[in-house]
Amino acid sequence: MSQLPTPVSLRVKPGPGRLAVTGIGNALLDVIVRDHDNLHARLGLTKGAMNLVDLNRAHEIYDGMGPTVQVSGGSVANTIAGVASLGGTSAFLGKVGADEFGDVFAHDLRSLGVELGLARSTQSDIQTGRCHVFVTDDAQRTMATYLGAANQFQPDDVDTSLIERSEIVYIEGYLFDLPPAKEAIRRIVEVAHDCDTLVALSLSDSFCVERHHQDFLKLVSDDVDVLLSNEGEIRALFGTSSLESAFAAVDELGVLTVVTCGPAGAQVGSVSGVVSVPAADVEVVVDQNGAGDLFAAGFLFALALGADPVEATELGSMCAGEIITHLGARPEANLEEMAMEFGLL
Amino acid sequence: MSQLPTPVSLRVKPGPGRLAVTGIGNALLDVIVRDHDNLHARLGLTKGAMNLVDLNRAHEIYDGMGPTVQVSGGSVANTIAGVASLGGTSAFLGKVGADEFGDVFAHDLRSLGVELGLARSTQSDIQTGRCHVFVTDDAQRTMATYLGAANQFQPDDVDTSLIERSEIVYIEGYLFDLPPAKEAIRRIVEVAHDCDTLVALSLSDSFCVERHHQDFLKLVSDDVDVLLSNEGEIRALFGTSSLESAFAAVDELGVLTVVTCGPAGAQVGSVSGVVSVPAADVEVVVDQNGAGDLFAAGFLFALALGADPVEATELGSMCAGEIITHLGARPEANLEEMAMEFGLL
Repeated sequence: MSQLPTPVSLRVKPGPGRLAVTGIGNALLDVIVRDHDNLHARLGLTKGAMNLVDLNRAHEIYDGMGPTVQVSGGSVANTIAGVASLGGTSAFLGKVGADEFGDVFAHDLRSLGVELGLARSTQSDIQTGRCHVFVTDDAQRTMATYLGAANQFQPDDVDTSLIERSEIVYIEGYLFDLPPAKEAIRRIVEVAHDCDTLVALSLSDSFCVERHHQDFLKLVSDDVDVLLSNEGEIRALFGTSSLESAFAAVDELGVLTVVTCGPAGAQVGSVSGVVSVPAADVEVVVDQNGAGDLFAAGFLFALALGADPVEATELGSMCAGEIITHLGARPEANLEEMAMEFGLL
Repeated sequence: MSQLPTPVSLRVKPGPGRLAVTGIGNALLDVIVRDHDNLHARLGLTKGAMNLVDLNRAHEIYDGMGPTVQVSGGSVANTIAGVASLGGTSAFLGKVGADEFGDVFAHDLRSLGVELGLARSTQSDIQTGRCHVFVTDDAQRTMATYLGAANQFQPDDVDTSLIERSEIVYIEGYLFDLPPAKEAIRRIVEVAHDCDTLVALSLSDSFCVERHHQDFLKLVSDDVDVLLSNEGEIRALFGTSSLESAFAAVDELGVLTVVTCGPAGAQVGSVSGVVSVPAADVEVVVDQNGAGDLFAAGFLFALALGADPVEATELGSMCAGEIITHLGARPEANLEEMAMEFGLL
């Protein structure tokens, strides 16, 4: 099994001016509805998946939704909010529109102390992206995403100094859907390699992995140090029918890999082979949205502090356990206090 | 004690094209934060009150808040959403900006089937109003409201046909803070009187009553059929030290009056004197925001159906009981189904 690539600092918070984790991803506002009677299906959306939609379709979907709740979202942005809530220094790179939703998105990260490398679109007709989230009674979420300004994230929007100051840079797989963002990823990876910043990647969504299979495979083979995924995503990546074969494939590539398996917990590669860590004990699951994102927050922050992969998985599970107890994918509890209570920080 | 003014229809849903309740009020988006450590006090806000703020102060307050949740709000707009959730036909009159928050506000009422007489500001620098809500651990809420476009609501913005089609028109007391809206109220009252639409008024806030004491007193004496308030508000209106003397004053004016008293329930004038109705039994109170607004929804909708004041108060209490179990002042449950289960509809 692969060894954990050694982070710059060990068991020590990043020094002055250093950042534990910098994330790059889609800047989105979540527009959430409780879906008691399969509204998502009537609107033609694939359950459990992230469905990409254009502006017309986004309007059609929104018009079909009941009253909604608006909360900042975006997969990697949720992770970064989680790192900040754990007491970690962090930054986020992305792009919003020059509108109120963009103000809300920026406010919600800034107010947690996250440093922002947030580009704003100069086109007045390009709005901040939004993700329409349908939360069904089984706590599953179905998403219809209009990318808006996030669609325009490009190499020039990358503040490389944030990458240089980071222990870990965390890249959202969804960015592969956007050609200019793919170039931006290339630039980020180059900077990260030059300054020994670890490169972590989220596979984001199995449909997304299928859409960009070769690109993902090349990035994982050549540039990725840490891989985060769920079972469907990693099997889609390696075309394997079992999780075991997928772990064998990443082991060969020397990539530290953690796979979340919902209520069954998570599996992580470690010096003693693949280790299973149980999910947090949660009384009532309200909304699974953000479970993977917040798992990533705990996992990556712990790695940045020099924890071993199993310890990191434990912190990830705790964070995932908090987010599924309420609507929305941004933490409501102070995760740092929670982790201290559990003896995980 | 005053007799209930007889609504047009009795125990019958309003006929085709008729509306049970039309509301006129401030169109606001609630920007909600959980306030665990008296942030509202550090920002200089009076606890439990609605503090009016200008744009600069609104920015200062927002900058001082942690991550927020955005949900449609506005006191009478919340009531109208409640009437719609109870299965009642309803309409809302107000004013928003030509921005995303305005779109959200309109969407959330329209999606419930509410008819909209929603004016939009043509000034690009006037945004939709917002109410910054601080929910403390004791479930109390402190508000800082920037009125924005709502500030510009004026007589020309009134779609009088909605008033003509309504059993009850419900006016938000907060509108007295706005000179052009005061003129709009005058127009609404005239139309209502011409077509036997009952005029209901919310006293909104005791500070607001003190700010416009004479105007409130004149409207209640001359034009109001149904008065909704809490204890502090009605005592401020009549300058009485006891609730009893306040009830004596409204009895003399012949105004049907209901007073909400938080966990102590509500008191309502009826043919058999002032009757107390207990509050709904609620396990955990999360956020008192909207309790009065949703009480009004049940109370007014029941009146529009021809229920007696005590029955109307019971439906009001049920609706208030739902809203305080979650964050935000718009109902999450289907209130019509809930009322049927409780045998109240």
